[in-house]
Amino acid sequence: AEEDFESEIPRLDLGIEGLDQMIQGGVPEKHLIVVIGSAGTGKTTFGLQFLNHGLKNGENAVFMTLEQSREAITATANEWGWDFERYEREGQLAVVDLDPVEMANSLDNIQAELPELIKDFGADRLVLDSVSLLEMMYDDQAKRRTEVFDFTRSLKKAGVTTFLTSEASESNAYASRHGIIEYLTDAVFVLQYVRGETQETRLAVEIQKIRNANHSREQKPYEMTDEGISVYQQANIF
Amino acid sequence: AEEDFESEIPRLDLGIEGLDQMIQGGVPEKHLIVVIGSAGTGKTTFGLQFLNHGLKNGENAVFMTLEQSREAITATANEWGWDFERYEREGQLAVVDLDPVEMANSLDNIQAELPELIKDFGADRLVLDSVSLLEMMYDDQAKRRTEVFDFTRSLKKAGVTTFLTSEASESNAYASRHGIIEYLTDAVFVLQYVRGETQETRLAVEIQKIRNANHSREQKPYEMTDEGISVYQQANIF
Amino acid sequence: AEEDFESEIPRLDLGIEGLDQMIQGGVPEKHLIVVIGSAGTGKTTFGLQFLNHGLKNGENAVFMTLEQSREAITATANEWGWDFERYEREGQLAVVDLDPVEMANSLDNIQAELPELIKDFGADRLVLDSVSLLEMMYDDQAKRRTEVFDFTRSLKKAGVTTFLTSEASESNAYASRHGIIEYLTDAVFVLQYVRGETQETRLAVEIQKIRNANHSREQKPYEMTDEGISVYQQANIF
Amino acid sequence: AEEDFESEIPRLDLGIEGLDQMIQGGVPEKHLIVVIGSAGTGKTTFGLQFLNHGLKNGENAVFMTLEQSREAITATANEWGWDFERYEREGQLAVVDLDPVEMANSLDNIQAELPELIKDFGADRLVLDSVSLLEMMYDDQAKRRTEVFDFTRSLKKAGVTTFLTSEASESNAYASRHGIIEYLTDAVFVLQYVRGETQETRLAVEIQKIRNANHSREQKPYEMTDEGISVYQQANIF
Amino acid sequence: AEEDFESEIPRLDLGIEGLDQMIQGGVPEKHLIVVIGSAGTGKTTFGLQFLNHGLKNGENAVFMTLEQSREAITATANEWGWDFERYEREGQLAVVDLDPVEMANSLDNIQAELPELIKDFGADRLVLDSVSLLEMMYDDQAKRRTEVFDFTRSLKKAGVTTFLTSEASESNAYASRHGIIEYLTDAVFVLQYVRGETQETRLAVEIQKIRNANHSREQKPYEMTDEGISVYQQANIF
Amino acid sequence: AEEDFESEIPRLDLGIEGLDQMIQGGVPEKHLIVVIGSAGTGKTTFGLQFLNHGLKNGENAVFMTLEQSREAITATANEWGWDFERYEREGQLAVVDLDPVEMANSLDNIQAELPELIKDFGADRLVLDSVSLLEMMYDDQAKRRTEVFDFTRSLKKAGVTTFLTSEASESNAYASRHGIIEYLTDAVFVLQYVRGETQETRLAVEIQKIRNANHSREQKPYEMTDEGISVYQQANIF
Ligand SMILES: Nc1ncnc2c1ncn2[C@@H]1O[C@H](COP(=O)(O)OP(=O)(O)O)[C@@H](O)[C@H]1O
Ligand SMILES: Nc1ncnc2c1ncn2[C@@H]1O[C@H](COP(=O)(O)OP(=O)(O)O)[C@@H](O)[C@H]1O
Ligand SMILES: Nc1ncnc2c1ncn2[C@@H]1O[C@H](COP(=O)(O)OP(=O)(O)O)[C@@H](O)[C@H]1O
Ligand SMILES: Nc1ncnc2c1ncn2[C@@H]1O[C@H](COP(=O)(O)OP(=O)(O)O)[C@@H](O)[C@H]1O
Ligand SMILES: Nc1ncnc2c1ncn2[C@@H]1O[C@H](COP(=O)(O)OP(=O)(O)O)[C@@H](O)[C@H]1O
Ligand SMILES: Nc1ncnc2c1ncn2[C@@H]1O[C@H](COP(=O)(O)OP(=O)(O)O)[C@@H](O)[C@H]1O
Ligand SMILES: [Mg+2]
Ligand SMILES: [Mg+2]
Ligand SMILES: [Mg+2]
Ligand SMILES: [Mg+2]
Ligand SMILES: [Mg+2]
Ligand SMILES: [Mg+2]
Repeated sequence: AEEDFESEIPRLDLGIEGLDQMIQGGVPEKHLIVVIGSAGTGKTTFGLQFLNHGLKNGENAVFMTLEQSREAITATANEWGWDFERYEREGQLAVVDLDPVEMANSLDNIQAELPELIKDFGADRLVLDSVSLLEMMYDDQAKRRTEVFDFTRSLKKAGVTTFLTSEASESNAYASRHGIIEYLTDAVFVLQYVRGETQETRLAVEIQKIRNANHSREQKPYEMTDEGISVYQQANIF
Repeated sequence: AEEDFESEIPRLDLGIEGLDQMIQGGVPEKHLIVVIGSAGTGKTTFGLQFLNHGLKNGENAVFMTLEQSREAITATANEWGWDFERYEREGQLAVVDLDPVEMANSLDNIQAELPELIKDFGADRLVLDSVSLLEMMYDDQAKRRTEVFDFTRSLKKAGVTTFLTSEASESNAYASRHGIIEYLTDAVFVLQYVRGETQETRLAVEIQKIRNANHSREQKPYEMTDEGISVYQQANIF
Repeated sequence: AEEDFESEIPRLDLGIEGLDQMIQGGVPEKHLIVVIGSAGTGKTTFGLQFLNHGLKNGENAVFMTLEQSREAITATANEWGWDFERYEREGQLAVVDLDPVEMANSLDNIQAELPELIKDFGADRLVLDSVSLLEMMYDDQAKRRTEVFDFTRSLKKAGVTTFLTSEASESNAYASRHGIIEYLTDAVFVLQYVRGETQETRLAVEIQKIRNANHSREQKPYEMTDEGISVYQQANIF
Repeated sequence: AEEDFESEIPRLDLGIEGLDQMIQGGVPEKHLIVVIGSAGTGKTTFGLQFLNHGLKNGENAVFMTLEQSREAITATANEWGWDFERYEREGQLAVVDLDPVEMANSLDNIQAELPELIKDFGADRLVLDSVSLLEMMYDDQAKRRTEVFDFTRSLKKAGVTTFLTSEASESNAYASRHGIIEYLTDAVFVLQYVRGETQETRLAVEIQKIRNANHSREQKPYEMTDEGISVYQQANIF
Repeated sequence: AEEDFESEIPRLDLGIEGLDQMIQGGVPEKHLIVVIGSAGTGKTTFGLQFLNHGLKNGENAVFMTLEQSREAITATANEWGWDFERYEREGQLAVVDLDPVEMANSLDNIQAELPELIKDFGADRLVLDSVSLLEMMYDDQAKRRTEVFDFTRSLKKAGVTTFLTSEASESNAYASRHGIIEYLTDAVFVLQYVRGETQETRLAVEIQKIRNANHSREQKPYEMTDEGISVYQQANIF
Repeated sequence: AEEDFESEIPRLDLGIEGLDQMIQGGVPEKHLIVVIGSAGTGKTTFGLQFLNHGLKNGENAVFMTLEQSREAITATANEWGWDFERYEREGQLAVVDLDPVEMANSLDNIQAELPELIKDFGADRLVLDSVSLLEMMYDDQAKRRTEVFDFTRSLKKAGVTTFLTSEASESNAYASRHGIIEYLTDAVFVLQYVRGETQETRLAVEIQKIRNANHSREQKPYEMTDEGISVYQQANIF
């Protein structure tokens, strides 16, 4: 589908089989991407795989986790067969675990320093897993909004392609848990369970928005196989 | 459908193929228009195309964005093949990026000065993308209401045809996110995803209201093609 | 249906073709009427047409608007072919535009003076468009309730047949936006969009209540034609 | 259905044709009854008819209204052909209009005096139209609860069969608007609109509860005819 | 179904025909039971019948009511043919009516004294009708929670089989009105209206939980006959 | 299904027949597991059975209950035929009953000491029944969040495989009552009632998430038999 494609904007592949084929030309570089899904839909795996794809091609990358320990993340990547330990050893990858309470308290400092740090490290891809846990730390809705707003601004300034994970709203699979982040991002992917009439539950992905890119608007099934997430771009959900 | 049409009110075309045909005589000039839709429905594109249509015909225009940088807006227009750079260079167009936090804080000043500025620039069309991000900045519902109310008043006073974009309410595609702006505008357009029984998601537009104009009330499919938004006025959604 | 009709209460016609036929004997005079509907259902047009009907018959009338300018209202009436300018010139009609913020602040004064003013002007019909914008100005629910309550009292005291417009609740087409006004009125009309299985949207009206009058309880389609609102009392919606 | 009926509790008829047949033996005397319904379902008419039935049989009665003027109530009864003026003149009936704001403020006094007043007047039946307007006056939910609670206590103490009208909850036709009164009453009747697949709206009544009485649990259609409310106990709604 | 049943826990019958057959071995003694249902589902009757069953077998019992007077409860029991007056006279039964406001205010004292009082009276069965009215008295959710929590603790300490009635949540028949009590009880029964496609409303009971007992999970119809509540364990609802 | 399974992470069996077969390789050790379900779905039984499985194999275990007394838990286990008394006597098992109010107040101390205590006891499996009752004790949402957050951290630090039970949200069977715990756990199991078209209610289990494990995503029926919970991995629900 690339034939007549013309654009002045540099683009990249996510590294998710099948999903990349649904985006004409790829995702514009330096985009702020959010993937919305409930527990177990594979958001963390998506983020790891997105980084691994860049790392394989020699890019530099940062994985910031608020949910797990640094060791747990590396072990998980290892289980998937992605050699994060080596990339870390060789200075291509930084895995950072942050305490959400502390991060919320010192977000101003982090914001101030982040662009510099990212530049120094030469990061091409950055994952933050998950923005919901950060948002959850703010009790006051106004404070939460302003902080998340300023934080995404500083991420954009950092000039790195950024991948945020977010829990879904309980009542609406297409909205994030706190209903802010999808307003502030350039691209929105939605992961969800689709429960059929039988007892089977399938996973489905949909591209809701990518600024400056033509993309499919179909809902497509995906699975978590031994090699990570794989989207069945040719198949139907039921 | 123009044949027996008589009106004393001057009117204009939006510049969206197919949609203009659904409005008898066109949208009254100096109307305050809102387009409501969720992320990725094409609101920003709609606004850019609305401006481009005027610019092509020699009108002056202003694009105020709270979501993206000035550069990003120009790049996006460029991707669509609309030469915003030239219009800016030639003084026909002003693209202004505003920080929502700052805008919220200094809205009183902005309101006071806006009508003058618009007059001086001779703007015929103005876009504000998006009013939701401005509304989001106010924590206190009463404050938000009064500010948005006063702001729309000053826009009306400015005597420019104005196009506001707004996120949709999560539970009701026909209501704006904060439930204020549709009360204060002369025309309301609704963009939404329509999910069929298969895995396909289509985009559909509906005219909910245009003061002083007879219009179709049908829901019509549209697509984002290489030339921007195009409404299939003859087609059905499914 | 008038044949066996007996009543001691003087009544009037609304002036909406088809709808008047659905009310046995007409609406009792001095009733406080509310019409509930979402944006674009024709509430303002209904109000204008209700006044025009009285004006044509030599009655005096007042149109109070919180949403538009005096000029805009007159222009709109003109578009419909109703000569409000002449009625105003000849002292039969007063169009008053009020700033909702100011009105909310000085409602006590307005209430105190309104009955007198209405009497002096000799108004037979009064429209307030819309009560929702007034209600919206009160942040505190208790304050809103009491103010609206006292205001409707003073309208009843004024002894004029009054027509209020109100936005509908987002989740229930039969409830007003703020859920107060339908408790305080003698008659309730509901305007709503009815979306069929195809892409078509039709307008439908229903009489929910008229004190002291027998009326149809059927939902009937209506359209906004060149002559204003016209109810198809014989037709079905779908 | 009266044949094998045995009870030590004195009972009365409501005076609503068809509905009385749905209650074995009648409603126990001195019960606190609530009828729940939205605007226009006929709650006020039900109350008037309930009083008229007693008045016709020589009972004494009180009608307390928070919604209309004393004159309006008498005029309404007159329209239905119930001669409230005569009953008032002859000291059998008292119609009292109360300002809800004032009533809310002096409810403690009212409660203290009510049982005495009711006794002195010798009232057998009492209507309060509507308890929702009283409840609406309290901003603080706890205050509302306690006041309504104490008020119903004093009504029970007064030893009069009492009929309260209440607006329905917006989301649940079987719950009262403020969700308190159905907890505090001995009998609950539910009036509601039933919208069929065609455009027709029918009225239906259901008995939800009567302490110490066996009653039908079927939903039955009713109409407001020239003689007031009439329940079609033999018919089905659709 | 008792054949292979083995258990070390002493058990009792509720005394509701058909329902006892749905519980293998009976309800464990000293359980804290809640029955959840909306107005008119028969909760109070269930409680009376539960006591009467014990009284008939020579047990001692206490009925605490927050909703009705002591006299009303005795009259109701009498109507059902249960001779509560005799049981009271003979010291086997205590009917206590409490003012919910006062009870809420002095709950700490009540809690402190209740276990002793119950022991002294030798009560085998206790009914509290209804816990919702007690809960309603607390404005502050945290206070309500703690009070109800402590109160159920003291009931458990009292070592009496206790039967609480609770109103159902408006939106969920399986949840109690305040959403606390089902967390704190050993057994949960759900009474509800089931509205079929015709105009008929049937009553249905379901056992949601009984600690330490195997029970049916089917929803079964019941009726309020001349002998009280009777569950049709063999029948289907529709 | 174990044949090609390779992993560096040590794993364990839950001890629930049928469910263990749905997880490739077993649950990773030291995982923080939550099981979400409404009252009566068998959460406590699941927890007891999970411990009993470990105890049978010589592991050490702790059961912390906030809902029942220590004696009640042991009696319940006994009813199921699991000899908790012996395991306690022999020092392999500790059953601890905590007052939720006290636990909430001294959670900081508990957190500080828990890891040490667990280590000293050498616990391999730990159950907390239920986290909802703990969460319920916090009135302030922010406080609740932070406390639960810190508490789960300290559980993870303790290095014990932990099983938490949680009530389900009223409106969404896949969300916990307070909507926090599923964010903080490594594995999420969902127990729910599935009501078919007949009067029958079945129990169904679904694995929503297990970090680092491939698992079935089918919803499977289970029953509480004489031997505890048994999942019918081969069957369909209806
Ligand atoms: N080795 C594996 N093989 C296949 N699927 C796996 C494997 N490891 C984890 N998964 C799947 O990934 C899910 C967890 O994905 P994760 O990315 O942590 O979800 P999220 O971050 O959205 O909560 C598990 O529930 C399981 O279905
Ligand atoms: N060059 C393009 N060709 C076709 N579609 C595009 C192109 N660029 C963007 N789009 C579409 O426009 C969408 C974004 O539109 P946008 O106006 O930014 O939406 P909104 O402002 O409502 O969030 C993308 O999700 C994509 O579907
Ligand atoms: N000249 C006209 N001919 C036909 N329909 C018109 C005309 N002018 C306005 N309308 C219709 O009236 C609608 C606006 O009605 P209005 O009374 O302002 O609605 P509301 O007050 O309920 O928001 C428009 O959306 C359009 O459908
Ligand atoms: N004379 C009449 N003949 C028939 N129906 C009438 C008559 N007067 C009023 N009604 C009906 O009664 C309704 C109003 O009943 P009302 O008791 O005031 O309702 P509520 O108190 O529930 O709002 C009207 O909407 C109308 O349908
Ligand atoms: N003598 C009776 N015979 C049959 N049914 C009765 C009798 N007395 C009351 N009922 C039924 O019992 C219902 C009231 O039951 P009650 O236990 O008070 O309900 P709840 O406490 O759940 O509100 C009545 O609505 C009626 O249907
Ligand atoms: N001996 C038993 N045999 C079969 N089922 C039982 C037995 N004891 C309890 N149950 C079942 O277990 C349920 C209670 O399980 P429990 O684990 O306490 O649920 P939860 O903790 O989710 O509220 C009872 O409602 C009953 O269905
Ligand atoms: Mg994750
Ligand atoms: Mg946009
Ligand atoms: Mg209007
Ligand atoms: Mg009424
Ligand atoms: Mg009861
Ligand atoms: Mg439990």
